[in-house]
Amino acid sequence: MLEASAESTNYLYRQVIDLIGENIDSGTLKPGDRLPSLRRMSTNIGVSIPTVRKAYIELERLRRVESRPQSGFYVRGMAANALVKPSPKFGRSTQPVPVTGQSLMERVNDALYEPDMVPFGIANPCMTRPAAKALHRAMKRIMARAENRSISYAPTRGEAGLRRQIAYRYLDTIGMTVEPENICITNGGQEALLIALQSVASKGDVIAVESPTYHGLLELIDSLGMLAIEVETCPEDGVMLDSLEKTLSAHPVKACLFSTTLSNPLGVSMTDDRRRKLVQIIEQHDVCLIEDDVYGELLFDGHRPKPAQIHSTRGRVLTCGSFSKTAAPGYRIGWLVAGNYIDQVAKIKRSFSCSSGLLQQLTLAEFLANGDYDRYLNMLRPALQCNAERMQSLVSRYFPKATRTSCPVGGSVMWLELPNGVDAEKLFDEAIAAGISIAPGHIFSPCNRYSNFIRLSFGHPWSERIEDGLKWLGRKVGEMSKQSQYN
Amino acid sequence: MLEASAESTNYLYRQVIDLIGENIDSGTLKPGDRLPSLRRMSTNIGVSIPTVRKAYIELERLRRVESRPQSGFYVRGMAANALVKPSPKFGRSTQPVPVTGQSLMERVNDALYEPDMVPFGIANPCMTRPAAKALHRAMKRIMARAENRSISYAPTRGEAGLRRQIAYRYLDTIGMTVEPENICITNGGQEALLIALQSVASKGDVIAVESPTYHGLLELIDSLGMLAIEVETCPEDGVMLDSLEKTLSAHPVKACLFSTTLSNPLGVSMTDDRRRKLVQIIEQHDVCLIEDDVYGELLFDGHRPKPAQIHSTRGRVLTCGSFSKTAAPGYRIGWLVAGNYIDQVAKIKRSFSCSSGLLQQLTLAEFLANGDYDRYLNMLRPALQCNAERMQSLVSRYFPKATRTSCPVGGSVMWLELPNGVDAEKLFDEAIAAGISIAPGHIFSPCNRYSNFIRLSFGHPWSERIEDGLKWLGRKVGEMSKQSQYN
Repeated sequence: MLEASAESTNYLYRQVIDLIGENIDSGTLKPGDRLPSLRRMSTNIGVSIPTVRKAYIELERLRRVESRPQSGFYVRGMAANALVKPSPKFGRSTQPVPVTGQSLMERVNDALYEPDMVPFGIANPCMTRPAAKALHRAMKRIMARAENRSISYAPTRGEAGLRRQIAYRYLDTIGMTVEPENICITNGGQEALLIALQSVASKGDVIAVESPTYHGLLELIDSLGMLAIEVETCPEDGVMLDSLEKTLSAHPVKACLFSTTLSNPLGVSMTDDRRRKLVQIIEQHDVCLIEDDVYGELLFDGHRPKPAQIHSTRGRVLTCGSFSKTAAPGYRIGWLVAGNYIDQVAKIKRSFSCSSGLLQQLTLAEFLANGDYDRYLNMLRPALQCNAERMQSLVSRYFPKATRTSCPVGGSVMWLELPNGVDAEKLFDEAIAAGISIAPGHIFSPCNRYSNFIRLSFGHPWSERIEDGLKWLGRKVGEMSKQSQYN
Repeated sequence: MLEASAESTNYLYRQVIDLIGENIDSGTLKPGDRLPSLRRMSTNIGVSIPTVRKAYIELERLRRVESRPQSGFYVRGMAANALVKPSPKFGRSTQPVPVTGQSLMERVNDALYEPDMVPFGIANPCMTRPAAKALHRAMKRIMARAENRSISYAPTRGEAGLRRQIAYRYLDTIGMTVEPENICITNGGQEALLIALQSVASKGDVIAVESPTYHGLLELIDSLGMLAIEVETCPEDGVMLDSLEKTLSAHPVKACLFSTTLSNPLGVSMTDDRRRKLVQIIEQHDVCLIEDDVYGELLFDGHRPKPAQIHSTRGRVLTCGSFSKTAAPGYRIGWLVAGNYIDQVAKIKRSFSCSSGLLQQLTLAEFLANGDYDRYLNMLRPALQCNAERMQSLVSRYFPKATRTSCPVGGSVMWLELPNGVDAEKLFDEAIAAGISIAPGHIFSPCNRYSNFIRLSFGHPWSERIEDGLKWLGRKVGEMSKQSQYN
């Protein structure tokens, strides 16, 4: 063994990285394969164990492999696809526009509840069995303990115990101080967004959104008679802050409606530094930020970024959270951390829906307090990651080479750019006819951009049906791509 | 015995009616007292048993007595108060105005959730123990049967089984045909009103309301930036149709937001004939009717009036229902029968809150299907009636003579006109300080009329605290009335 100088160590360590990288690229090492042990690799190629370890750790940082405790290093699914990424070019800035494309959104939505559809259309982590078991246990205890009360009205702002649990969780996981009195419980994240928007803007006002952005935000903006303006968004960094500044200077924007963590569909999370700058910009321009943070707990590595609200000095940020993506979608329990707007928020909550379901609130408070929520999330995140890697791997195998995909680091959706000429609405129609639901790119923009993009959910338990669905989609995209070349 | 001719029979029968009436008026017969048996009365005054029976039945029709199966005839509480009624004079018609008085509404609302308050402020039939038991049984069955599904998203329009049960109930109880597909499940009656309003009107539009009307409607109109116009309302007949026609001719009203059955706070129900005319008028004027029917099942006599929607030929009526007043307020499950507006309603529902809680929907569907809902309502109605009569009796005993009250025939609220010079907001402040919540009249009008009215709820299980609360209020109103005479 050599390893005399730092330089040669560096050289050997790079050699290990390249060796593993080449084997992944060639397909010798496939997603999920275990790398040779440190000892064996050291023996095999004549490099010290610390150097191999250093190389493996660097490969992990590069997201090509991952370590599993007491087990070793494994190839990550997305490593095989590292270059198959969306390019920033598709982020756009525009003029304020009314939202269009509702009829397509309606058709996408209708397909979600067809029980026999292969469910790529809904951004819902549906691996719910352990959560259901624990929630049912908690609910039965509540029903026994508070028989009458559990069917009564909750207070407008929500059950005090749940608000305290949510505040405690902010403190415990990210050191963020939130007053329970500043939290208003809502009917899921969607009502949180509704109440936040209605608290700070009204009909005719201009709302800035990411491009692309979650179609549910666009439908909401449309229902309230507001206008949307798209802000350029980059798949690595999130909202482009220079574009945002230009937009805020040029247009009378009333509020920004952004997702700072695991944006939907891009899956991008802003860095702390960029969150801070974002808040500075909106507060300088006297604009509100409504922060959709419903995926905040779903980064695969368990890291929970701090909401942008933590950087607010003037209370102009409202943060929307939800248990729909992390525990029980059907409970319809979300919340708003309302900053300066809490009184207005509570008033609108009362007039819009009185209060939210009490039994579910009591149940979730217990689910959080007894640790079941954390246990479930610790099970859910790696399960979602595994699904993401499998999907990535199948997309790279069955979709045409020109397909580009996001590399999910959390959440339950992947964003795909299809080869030029493939129309996602046409693909949607054919997929529905074949029993497969997808979300066509059109609905992620107020004016139907992204017509050759689709969003696929990997939130459902993996199955042969899911694999067959991906194969079918890949083949169909291939056909459509070829047809478009002949036309 | 005489009774030779029909004329003399008629005379004798009137004699019995007068005799009983006088004894009730004088206080010899008190609410809850049993009338002399038919046989005894026949013997006592020398009139045939059939004539006495005929007189008792007429007294029942006049709501002075009630028959109890296998037991006899009993004096009704409100009979003692038959003249203590609000006069029609307080119904008003106005110009369109923005809603004011939100800060008082807020204080009223805050007091509702203070656990130690004597709860006269909330219109909630809270005799929930039997409902809670049956609902919990149903919910446990659902959780066992559909473990995973029960925490999943419901479809936007609601769970098909519950929509079918609601439609079936319209057919079964009143012969009204409603398509399950025309029903959208909502987060309680309040969200039904929100979605209905947002479907047919927008910011700046004028909405006609009864005078007085439910404060939750006024808060909603305010939150949506709409204007309210009051329509004269009579405590015997409901909305005055001639006033309505004048209002619709003079002002650009977009929708009427009325309660046709057991309006809140007046407690009046329109006749079928007046409902038909109401629908004719609004459809002639090309205006929508949003019908708040959340008390439709709570007439003490079990009669369920047909919603005005049944008379609609042009689909311009939307009917809002709810299980909050009849089963489980905390479940937050209501519905809209949406007429022509179903597509718009479903779109707004999706963008406002995605869908409503699935577990509660499945539970209520089972609660309806297995007959528990009817069993509970059959228990609830007489319990509410008994409370209404007790409250009526105590009000007539402890409040100043000049107090006038509504005579509830259903629901859970009584509307009181206090003597001139008594300010309901001042009374509210003093009552809160004494641990008693009431709803001051101001909040039942967009511009704070009804400042000498209050609304009292009799929906809670009767108790000494409730009696003491009524005595306290009566005394305090007496003092305030005297003070105002000296000033």
